[in-house]
Parts: sequence; structure tokens; C-alpha cells
Amino acid sequence: MPRAAKPDRPAEPPTSRDRILEAAARLICEKGYEATSIQDIAQATGLTKAGLYHHIRSKESLLLEIQHYGMDVFEERVLSQVVSIADPLERLKTCMEKNVLLVTQGWSKEVTIILHEHATLTGEARAQINGRKKRYVRFLETSFAEAVRSGQIRPVNPKVAAFALLGMVLWIYKWFRADGPIPAEQLAREMQDVLFGGLEVKPTAAGPARKANRG
Amino acid sequence: MPRAAKPDRPAEPPTSRDRILEAAARLICEKGYEATSIQDIAQATGLTKAGLYHHIRSKESLLLEIQHYGMDVFEERVLSQVVSIADPLERLKTCMEKNVLLVTQGWSKEVTIILHEHATLTGEARAQINGRKKRYVRFLETSFAEAVRSGQIRPVNPKVAAFALLGMVLWIYKWFRADGPIPAEQLAREMQDVLFGGLEVKPTAAGPARKANRG
Repeated sequence: MPRAAKPDRPAEPPTSRDRILEAAARLICEKGYEATSIQDIAQATGLTKAGLYHHIRSKESLLLEIQHYGMDVFEERVLSQVVSIADPLERLKTCMEKNVLLVTQGWSKEVTIILHEHATLTGEARAQINGRKKRYVRFLETSFAEAVRSGQIRPVNPKVAAFALLGMVLWIYKWFRADGPIPAEQLAREMQDVLFGGLEVKPTAAGPARKANRG
Repeated sequence: MPRAAKPDRPAEPPTSRDRILEAAARLICEKGYEATSIQDIAQATGLTKAGLYHHIRSKESLLLEIQHYGMDVFEERVLSQVVSIADPLERLKTCMEKNVLLVTQGWSKEVTIILHEHATLTGEARAQINGRKKRYVRFLETSFAEAVRSGQIRPVNPKVAAFALLGMVLWIYKWFRADGPIPAEQLAREMQDVLFGGLEVKPTAAGPARKANRG
């Protein structure tokens, strides 16, 4: 998977680095961060300890790298794909679809867990990741506000709408199974329908016209 | 706050027990479970270590107790308040409202974190808590299926609808601040509107009639 090179990253095959980060994420989620040693991670990735230290500086820098990796993949596969969509409603719908597909198929569940549950990062490292997350929240809030102004969605608090979308999408890793009864594409469609179409059928003279009104 | 006595609980003032569990939850979230000692928890609750052991058996049993406490409060303030509502749509809306108010006001954020992020429980203890959580998911799925059958909501996959509601409500602890710009009651109302009313304004001959159709 191609990824924009970061200026602070050495030129090395990204797949090798990503593989290390995915394996480390799985191990940290399984054993706990404290209980996971650099030796464990080296073993899981088929590297020597020295070989692993060629890629990472320390266990804490590895945790930060996993979170940056998660944000890199997210920005590449979701945010950068939709920022240029002019229509705010279309932008938000496509964004939701791509984010659902990312959390169901795009990476290991463990990367999501480390990105959203892991509180071990502190100070500057924590601030870096929070800044990247906040950029996404601001993007959603701005898009919802724009869609309200354009009259495409009801006057809703953009912050509530943004976190409703985020909650629906990011909670998925807690229950979704790739081998379960709901395919990822269907889930993305149904989540879009729930958020943008709403659930309730409103009684109208024309009968249950919600679906018929579409398009 | 009154709570139904559990058969396996000694007769003691529940407020004292709850206070210990809330304090322990805060400490565990702050320092991490591994790094928190029984001595730390005793100190935080103003008890001697012996006094604390009068209430709990071990650190692992304390973690299980915090999760049972979270589920007890949830069942008392949310589930038991709504199970007997005959109308499935009304039941779901009230349930969502009460659950939003619980996560914003009902207990410490740390109890929610331990309930939903803490993976340290294993075996029988883990199965107990998962069983209680699954009971809530089943209740939501059944209610959504019933509301689809009654024609009150669109034909939606009840599992997707249940986890959409859960995601919206349970993600709140990650961003909501009691001293922030959105009061809890407003958040509960807006979240209900987003999930049940949907966001999108559908073009109809009668104009933007979504709000007007209500009631």
C-alpha cells in the first residue's frame, strides 16, 4: 500500500515497517504494554533485537509509531480521499463509508484499539496524536456546519453530529467480525442510511415515503 | 442511590462500597491497573489496607466489582426504567436518552473506561460481564426488530441499529465535558434526533417537512 513519505522517516520499504507495527500492535493488545518486551516484538516479527532496533528507538517510540501509522493509513484512505469533494453532504457520506471500510478491512483491530484506547503516551507524543485526531473532528464539524448552511441537513449542532458519526464508526471495532453475518460494504451502506436517513418513518399523507423521496 | 441488593453481597452501606469502587476506578485509569497497588486504593479511599480487605478480596476481584458496579448502575438507571415501555420506538428513544444522561452525569468517566476498555479480566469474570453487556445488546436488537415490524422505523438490520445507538452513546465519554458548551439534556435530545430523525432534509413538494411532520 503506497503511503506518502514523511520527512522524518528513513527511506525503507514501508511494508516492512508496517508489518512490524501491525505485529507489535497485536502483541501489545494481547499481553499488555508493560508486559510486552522488545524481545517479544522482535520474535513476533522474525527479527533479531538488533534488527528491530534498526527500525525503532524504544518501546515508547514504537507505541507512538503505531499511532502515527494508524493516523497515516486513516488520512491516506479516508481523509485525503474526501477533502476535495465540493458538496458537503456527499463529502460526509463518502467519508463515513470509507471510514467504515477502513475499520472493518483496512488494518488490524489492534491498531484501532491502540489508537483509541491506549493512554500510555504522554507529553509531546500524546499531543502529536491528539492534534491529528482533532484535525479529523474539525473537518467533520466544518462539513456538518456547511451542510446545515446549504440546507441539506437539519440544523444540528455540528459537534454532536461529528461525534455521532465518529461513535457509530469507531465503535464498530468492538463488535464487528469479518466472518460475521454482515458484510463490510453492507454495514457501510446501512450506517450511512441510519445517520443521514434516520430510522423513524414519519407519517405523511403519502404514506411511508422516506425511501420513495430519495434521489 | 438505592440499588437492589445482590444475593452475593454482604449487607453494608452501598454508598461506602460505591465510593471505594469509584475511587479505585479513577486510580486504575490514572496509573494503570498493573501499577496500582491495594495500598494506593486504601489511601485514596481513606481506609487502612485491612479496612479495604473487609470490602474486597483482591485487586482482580476489585476490577470485576467495578465492572459489576457499572452494570448495576446502568441496569438500575437505564434498562429497568425502560423494559416495560410497551411501544418499541418510545422504549428505544427513552433508553437512548437515559443512557446518554448516565454516561454524562451518572458516574465517573473512569467507570465507563473500565467497563468498555479494560481487557484485564479473564475467564469466568470476563464471561460474567460480557453476558451482562450482551443482555443489553439483545434488548436493543429485539426492540429495533419490533419497531421495524410495527412499521415505526425503516427496515434496518437490528444489529446495525443497536450498535449505531451504542456507538453514539458510549463514545460520548471520550469527548463530552460536563463544563463544555453542550448541556447533557441537550445532548440527549440531539442524539435522539440524529438517530431517529436522521440528518438529511429530503426534498418534498411540501418543502423541508421533516420537523413539521413530527408529533
